Amino acid sequence: MAGQDIEKLIKICAKLPSLGTRSARRVVLHLIKKRETVLQPLIEALRDVEHNIKTCEICGNFDTTSPCAVCSSEKREKNTVCVVQDVADLWAMERAGFYHGQYHVLGGVLSALDGISPEDLNIETLLSRIRNNMITEVILALPATIDGSITSNYLVSRLKEFDIKITTLAQGIPIGAELDYMDDGTLQLALNSRKEM
Amino acid sequence: MAGQDIEKLIKICAKLPSLGTRSARRVVLHLIKKRETVLQPLIEALRDVEHNIKTCEICGNFDTTSPCAVCSSEKREKNTVCVVQDVADLWAMERAGFYHGQYHVLGGVLSALDGISPEDLNIETLLSRIRNNMITEVILALPATIDGSITSNYLVSRLKEFDIKITTLAQGIPIGAELDYMDDGTLQLALNSRKEM
Repeated sequence: MAGQDIEKLIKICAKLPSLGTRSARRVVLHLIKKRETVLQPLIEALRDVEHNIKTCEICGNFDTTSPCAVCSSEKREKNTVCVVQDVADLWAMERAGFYHGQYHVLGGVLSALDGISPEDLNIETLLSRIRNNMITEVILALPATIDGSITSNYLVSRLKEFDIKITTLAQGIPIGAELDYMDDGTLQLALNSRKEM
Repeated sequence: MAGQDIEKLIKICAKLPSLGTRSARRVVLHLIKKRETVLQPLIEALRDVEHNIKTCEICGNFDTTSPCAVCSSEKREKNTVCVVQDVADLWAMERAGFYHGQYHVLGGVLSALDGISPEDLNIETLLSRIRNNMITEVILALPATIDGSITSNYLVSRLKEFDIKITTLAQGIPIGAELDYMDDGTLQLALNSRKEM
């Protein structure tokens, strides 16, 4: 129906996260219509990312340099490490802009279903960072899912050998949420962990 | 928070249709993670489209050749032209695969709100196609919106000078639809245009 080149591009785009075949078609049509103003800058930006982006050898972040801007910053606290599942979570924390310590990207969480075992995650590098640096606190900021808490518990058992503080993010009702839209589990947890005012 | 190259790519992706900042971030992270299997093929495919895709000089379709595959096909009926708003609509008709005539991409519909007047649409090229070819029927397949039907009516007035059949797509309940999910306008129209069985 359309040129083979277009079909091929639609197929590739349709496999990207948050896109399906229908939206991929819309994207490709948009690109063809805006060749100079969108398609060409997009190709340029993709090639820059392809050539310039490295994985940070210390924390696993993506940046133009390795060590990344966070790891090499003089201004950040060196003795706190926040363990996150993915680079996306690291970026979310950085966007919020209140955390000033180090990060460690685990690269996933343990999952029996997906066959992800401790060897598949960046756990050894975390242990050696703690061993070789003056780390005093590890903050486990993993997802509030079953797999996430299994992974947190596993990490706690592995971190026992070190004399450090291990913390995890508080759980409860998110800011701005309506109670009747919260699931039962969150409500129960928030009630059980209620705080005196 | 991330390299400048990444930020720039996210910004470009966030402006694409069906993507926002959040999904653009997910797409970009996915691309960085799958450099060899997704990012490189995507760049390749985008460049192929950039270099090879032309706008068909006859109907306005996008293809690797101009005239496009539809216009240059020997197998297609030459005396029927289906007028569509956009290349996306042409592709949708082709996917359905039941129409074997010619197309004409209008490039939009008349809209007082968006300031789109007849001169902004490919109307003159349509008229000259009808004038110079053995066209016997024009099918108006414009959107079932107010702007779409205003455009259809305008086209009917312009096509009066030719001795041809002018038709438009049937309107009614779409196949598979539940009646209680249909809007009042469609229900009324479907009832008024009811057919004897």
